[in-house]
Amino acid sequence: MAKIDPWGSNAVSDYDHVFKEFGLSKFPESMKKQLKHHFFERNIVVAHRDFEKVLERIKKKKKFINITGIASSGPYHLGHKADLDLFVFFKKCGAKNYFCVCDLDAYCSRPKIKTVAEAKEIAVQNVADALALGLSEKDIYVQSNREKEYYSFAFEIGKKITAKTFEAIYGHLDLGKVSANLLQYADILHGQLPEYSGKMPSITGIGLDQDSHARATRDVAKRLGYNLEMPSFIYFKFQSGLKQGSKMSSSEPDTAIFLNDCKADVVKKVGSCFTGGCPTAKEQRRLGGKPEICKKYEIDLFHLESAAKLKDIFEKCKSGKRLCGECKKLTIDYMDKFLKEHQAKAKKNLPKAKKIVYG
Amino acid sequence: MAKIDPWGSNAVSDYDHVFKEFGLSKFPESMKKQLKHHFFERNIVVAHRDFEKVLERIKKKKKFINITGIASSGPYHLGHKADLDLFVFFKKCGAKNYFCVCDLDAYCSRPKIKTVAEAKEIAVQNVADALALGLSEKDIYVQSNREKEYYSFAFEIGKKITAKTFEAIYGHLDLGKVSANLLQYADILHGQLPEYSGKMPSITGIGLDQDSHARATRDVAKRLGYNLEMPSFIYFKFQSGLKQGSKMSSSEPDTAIFLNDCKADVVKKVGSCFTGGCPTAKEQRRLGGKPEICKKYEIDLFHLESAAKLKDIFEKCKSGKRLCGECKKLTIDYMDKFLKEHQAKAKKNLPKAKKIVYG
Repeated sequence: MAKIDPWGSNAVSDYDHVFKEFGLSKFPESMKKQLKHHFFERNIVVAHRDFEKVLERIKKKKKFINITGIASSGPYHLGHKADLDLFVFFKKCGAKNYFCVCDLDAYCSRPKIKTVAEAKEIAVQNVADALALGLSEKDIYVQSNREKEYYSFAFEIGKKITAKTFEAIYGHLDLGKVSANLLQYADILHGQLPEYSGKMPSITGIGLDQDSHARATRDVAKRLGYNLEMPSFIYFKFQSGLKQGSKMSSSEPDTAIFLNDCKADVVKKVGSCFTGGCPTAKEQRRLGGKPEICKKYEIDLFHLESAAKLKDIFEKCKSGKRLCGECKKLTIDYMDKFLKEHQAKAKKNLPKAKKIVYG
Repeated sequence: MAKIDPWGSNAVSDYDHVFKEFGLSKFPESMKKQLKHHFFERNIVVAHRDFEKVLERIKKKKKFINITGIASSGPYHLGHKADLDLFVFFKKCGAKNYFCVCDLDAYCSRPKIKTVAEAKEIAVQNVADALALGLSEKDIYVQSNREKEYYSFAFEIGKKITAKTFEAIYGHLDLGKVSANLLQYADILHGQLPEYSGKMPSITGIGLDQDSHARATRDVAKRLGYNLEMPSFIYFKFQSGLKQGSKMSSSEPDTAIFLNDCKADVVKKVGSCFTGGCPTAKEQRRLGGKPEICKKYEIDLFHLESAAKLKDIFEKCKSGKRLCGECKKLTIDYMDKFLKEHQAKAKKNLPKAKKIVYG
């Protein structure tokens, strides 16, 4: 078994075969050192495609496009916060920012969203959250409220992908999802059109499971004939759900902490999450805990910014000095503090969010 | 053989089986009498779906939507003029007018159009022609220059049609053509959205070969959940090409008279078109001509407005009193006169057309 460290770098080896298979590059140590964010330090970002040219721009203080989108299918949870945290990091690196609130995409691709109006309502809260997390009004756009140039471009893309390719990549040919995908390709690429920022490298953070989408976007970029720079991607390690083996999911509220959760929710969710701890306190004191499989520790890894505090949590757990209950309390406390502050900021930003969504 | 008359009504019987098969209604004599345009009088409009409610609106001087689109894939020919003539007729009936210049659709669906910029260039001449034929600026919109509400609606429609349905209707699953079709459904239906004219009957004139498209549009209208009025359609008799057995086609210039043709083109094209006349003048004088299969007579039927002149042409041909050469000269003369006047008007409208296309 590989050596375990507080930054969870061992888990990267699990992905090695995936990288090879899909032609991804492992995110090298040399690059990590140049990017001052715990997502890099803690091996949360594990792979990339063509990130070199973005890094080059950052180092030379030249502009690049920072583009990420989240579908408006429900309130944001900590998984979305991670996406936004990375977005804010690149914003601070001096990017041209395109944060897309994907209301139309959410409607087209998800049966549970019955109308565009419903997706727009969700979008308002999403935008308020994004503003509270450090984005400003000019960093955000809402698909349903985007200019015609963007839409026209999305339709153009329809000419550049075949049904067979689509089916091979996504395993289906749901025309609603095709529509959503055309919008997503446009989201990633339209910033390079002359009407927007013009040709330049772009960066988008995605999950490893979305790589097929990244490849399709790059393929489309080549075919479009607009002389676009190939978009770059960096890949997140999967942020899992709070229950053992679960995925963090908007449709199963107990698997995730949402940005609009109250203290009672956090106490309940963190309190009952899977830790992998020993059956008895005595045993745990003797053998220590297993942060590498603990869901609470995963929250810390992604969202506890202090490296010293994280190291302390890791070491006290491994050595059996601190038991799960006390350890959970630490997380509940900082998470509740963060959420309270966040919710106050988001509330203050609601009028601005409405303006962004409804124009 | 059915009795032949100058208005070509016999040809309608050829379509009877088509109507039955596809569930179309034959355009009834009672309706034709209420619509003062030679397309109705001369049985050029042969069938309909749900036209009753549009006629009702016309009679009660209530508003209805008049929507037609032509792809910007080349200069307009007499076939397009017929579409526009019908559009102008409904405009005069007091409609809310939506003439769509389909530049994006042309790009998405046609391999020969290499860029949207190319489609837009073609669109400028198309718009100038439409203005010259009696449309005003507010009657016309260009897809690539339409508001985001229209585009958003087109993407929404993607959720309401399945790949299987699409393939069954159109016999293919070219995603560029899927994109073009989503735009076309939006063209026909978006006028009923609250942001535009609101719910009301609409009328679109199409060729019989496009009925599958009409049915798909009506199916989508039902599924969208916007409480839309089912769109109505009327069906044109096929306007064929100038050569025997040919289709009027932008890609084969000799099969059609274009609105930008000069006199020499008209002389050449009408002069050499198929008439079905007898091999010798003597025989033709004895047996008479065959206007029912004559391509030049088809031009007259669609584009010579004077009923008296058309009747005279028909009778002098049938009786053998006028031979093809002389008869062609008549058509060349009025067509050349029309084209010269039209081209002068279109030229004057070019600046306005540019403004409509490029905003």
